[in-house]
Parts: sequence; structure tokens; C-alpha cells
Amino acid sequence: MADILHRIGAVSSPESVYAALTEVDGLAAWWTEDTTDVDGVLRFRFPVGGFDMKVLDTRPGELVLWEVVDGPEEWIGTRIRFDLKQHDEWTIVLFRHEGWREPVEFMYHCSTKWASFLLSLKQLLETGKGDPAPRDVRISDWH
Amino acid sequence: MADILHRIGAVSSPESVYAALTEVDGLAAWWTEDTTDVDGVLRFRFPVGGFDMKVLDTRPGELVLWEVVDGPEEWIGTRIRFDLKQHDEWTIVLFRHEGWREPVEFMYHCSTKWASFLLSLKQLLETGKGDPAPRDVRISDWH
Repeated sequence: MADILHRIGAVSSPESVYAALTEVDGLAAWWTEDTTDVDGVLRFRFPVGGFDMKVLDTRPGELVLWEVVDGPEEWIGTRIRFDLKQHDEWTIVLFRHEGWREPVEFMYHCSTKWASFLLSLKQLLETGKGDPAPRDVRISDWH
Repeated sequence: MADILHRIGAVSSPESVYAALTEVDGLAAWWTEDTTDVDGVLRFRFPVGGFDMKVLDTRPGELVLWEVVDGPEEWIGTRIRFDLKQHDEWTIVLFRHEGWREPVEFMYHCSTKWASFLLSLKQLLETGKGDPAPRDVRISDWH
């Protein structure tokens, strides 16, 4: 098993970060504009493909945990976890996309792409404007 | 053991990417301006701390492999590997910082920071100007 790990901080409250990770409008403002909630399953769609996430656990201002229930074969069954904590004026996000069966090249891509989207989340929280898909930062030929 | 993985692509030749990963002037233009080569050991210095890398292996246009011989305790003995390959007009960099003993919080930070510096490398190759330290992108309270 292999995990993608990231840490970012935003000058923002844990409540605001939590809202951006749990509310459809918040998620759509940093990850992908095409985000919907269908009977408790979050559906994220991109110009090519997408992911469905079952919300396994949430604790306001502290934790968001999803399980991938549909999407690329490599993602299905993996979990995505956001742990939040306050540090002075910062809210720190410890991010983990865990349970990859193999460190395939797609995992390398997703790791860099997650970093880029977490910077979009930081920017949303600090400036009011993120860079969600379809106007996300292009990192390579795989977009 | 745990590894940090990333994949970026730059519209550039493998030779140019290789130069940016092996020449002092190239490294100084995307990672940290304070880069020197002291008897074959690359020394990277930042406003706080730094890293010394022994070059273990290089293959022009294909591979750069370093071992960390001095720096933060968690980094010592880890290896940093850049595999290059051409794909149409792109050069793809598969990056691995491998051999972390534990997935400590500092590893989460370094993973995101590496992504940010690899985007600086991409920008250098495509526009002629990267964002090396000390004017690197701030990602959190840990800088």
C-alpha cells in the first residue's frame, strides 16, 4: 500500500476550511466546478472523467474522510482524509490519499495534482478565489 | 519506508531538463538561489537550513539520482531520483524522494513543497524564469 501525503496552511479558521471541504459550493470553488451531492455521495466531474466519494466521517473543524466508490480503477476503495488543526492564525490541513495498491505512474501524477488543488484551496480561503477545474493549473500532458 | 512521488511535464527537451537538474546555475534557478558544488557534493541552502546531496548516478537526458548526506535528520540517507522521458513535445519528470523512515508531519510538508518546486522547474523550462528560494511560493506556517 502507498499513500499520497500533503500539508498546507491557510490563514483562515478551521470552520471556514471545513466548510470548503464539506459544502458543495465550497468544493466547487477549489477542486472542480462540476460538484454535486447525490443522496449523500459527492460527485466530482472533470472535463475527462471524475470521482464519486462516500462521506465516511466528518467532525466539524477537525476531520473529513471520504471513500472513493467510483472513478478510475486505481482510485476505487482508496480513502481521502483531511485532518485540520489550528496553529496561531493558521489552519493546517494534513491531507492523505491512502491505500493505493501500487505506486503506478498515475499515482505520481495525482500526487502533484493534489498539491496543486490544495494550493487552490489555500488561495480560495485567503483571497476568495480558487482555481478549480476546468480552469485548474496544467502540470503536464496528462493535464 | 515511505516515498514522496510526483509527475510533471514541461514543453522542453530532455537535455534542457537534465541541465536544470545537474548544473549549479540550473538548480539555482528553480530550487534555491544558494546552490554550490563543493568537491562533487551539491549544497543547497535556504533562509533556514539546507541539504547536501551526493550525486550517486546520472545518465544524460534520462536520470539524476542523489543521496542526502547532510540536512534535517529525517532526510539523511534518503534518496532523490528524477527519471526523464520524452513524450511528443513534452519531457516528463518522474520524481521520487524515497526511503523516509516514518510518514512524519515534516514528510507531508516536504511532499507539497516538492510539488511547488517542480512547478517552478516547469516554469523555468517553459518561460525562462522559476521561483527558487528565497522567493519560493509560501505554502504554510512552515514556509
